Amino acid sequence: MSLVRVHNFAVSLDGFGTGAGQQLDAPFGHAGSRLMEWAFPTRTFQQMGFHGQDAGSTGIDEAFAGRWSSGVGVEIMGRNKFGPQRGPWVDDRWRGWWGENPPFHTPVIVLTHHPRPTLTMEGGTTFHFVDAEPAAALARARELAGDLDVRIGGGATTIREFLRADLVDQMHIVVVPIVLGRGERLWDGLESLEERFDVEAVSSPTGVIHLTFSRVPAG
Amino acid sequence: MSLVRVHNFAVSLDGFGTGAGQQLDAPFGHAGSRLMEWAFPTRTFQQMGFHGQDAGSTGIDEAFAGRWSSGVGVEIMGRNKFGPQRGPWVDDRWRGWWGENPPFHTPVIVLTHHPRPTLTMEGGTTFHFVDAEPAAALARARELAGDLDVRIGGGATTIREFLRADLVDQMHIVVVPIVLGRGERLWDGLESLEERFDVEAVSSPTGVIHLTFSRVPAG
Repeated sequence: MSLVRVHNFAVSLDGFGTGAGQQLDAPFGHAGSRLMEWAFPTRTFQQMGFHGQDAGSTGIDEAFAGRWSSGVGVEIMGRNKFGPQRGPWVDDRWRGWWGENPPFHTPVIVLTHHPRPTLTMEGGTTFHFVDAEPAAALARARELAGDLDVRIGGGATTIREFLRADLVDQMHIVVVPIVLGRGERLWDGLESLEERFDVEAVSSPTGVIHLTFSRVPAG
Repeated sequence: MSLVRVHNFAVSLDGFGTGAGQQLDAPFGHAGSRLMEWAFPTRTFQQMGFHGQDAGSTGIDEAFAGRWSSGVGVEIMGRNKFGPQRGPWVDDRWRGWWGENPPFHTPVIVLTHHPRPTLTMEGGTTFHFVDAEPAAALARARELAGDLDVRIGGGATTIREFLRADLVDQMHIVVVPIVLGRGERLWDGLESLEERFDVEAVSSPTGVIHLTFSRVPAG
């Protein structure tokens, strides 16, 4: 069976996966870019081309960042990762934060209570808008992924819901040593999560901490 | 000027410094001993004698744990660290969690709205019960400490109040990779704390993460 994976998801010391006040010019709200600055210099993120483009770092942060796409056949994301609007779509002009050639290059399921027609982008990314609970969304994702793995792309609410439903096999979380104070918490409602995972930690010279959660085999 | 220091204060991934439901047989509430298990095997904690007594570990965890007492002339603690009672003291029989020879061996200021006579214990520990805001409590502590440093001993509320008042110079926080879900949060109300400190992180083979906060010099 293919695995369900989370990669490169950053939280503050106080557990916020995004700040408050997301809007068009602030996808992470008042957090700005602070949760992802560890990633921008890496080769993986440089190759996405959003933050300048040079050879990129190949150290500890890249060792983690670079794992996000290998073997992954589909991403599931929450609507707030896709865009800043809430409620019914006003029109179909919003096509994501990433321009016409998004970095996913696979099908992407966008969880929303307001379905709209599938968007076919350049480079192999297609956005499928699905109104479903985690288990049903995962079944649909596996149809799209074939034998490949499923990535839960975030945001915090989406990852939390998949963790609550015990559907995540591997998770890479980055703790950034800042205190955000407000926003969307990753860990709420997940008391004793560690009992279901082997958790390891390593610090990076850039100051962040990489955590890996590996699901403990059942039985 | 002597420094104000925090040592060996552990929080969960979701930022709780103690669990919910503190009582006589559960000083950390539902967290049990999980927040401090990294510390028990260390030489420093073994020498305190509460958790068996052998030679103790002398690795990375001990490198941090062992710093707590050197150069410290007084501790300030919250009333909930001193004992499980709330409100007016019923009688004076409660003399702390630590028996007749507590591990502090210095004066200790216990912050409480209900003062009572100073307790003189064996081994040099005296408990002084003081009803004061952080700055006034610190002034009293410095009188007791002479030229030595002041340790803020916790719990979470007490450390948070001293951080809010910007009275902490050095802080050692241990992130334990568990999700407690409820209890007392350390980071609340401390948005952008990192702007006042240089923060460094290192992971330990035992699975915890040691964070050091060093106050950035003013101006």
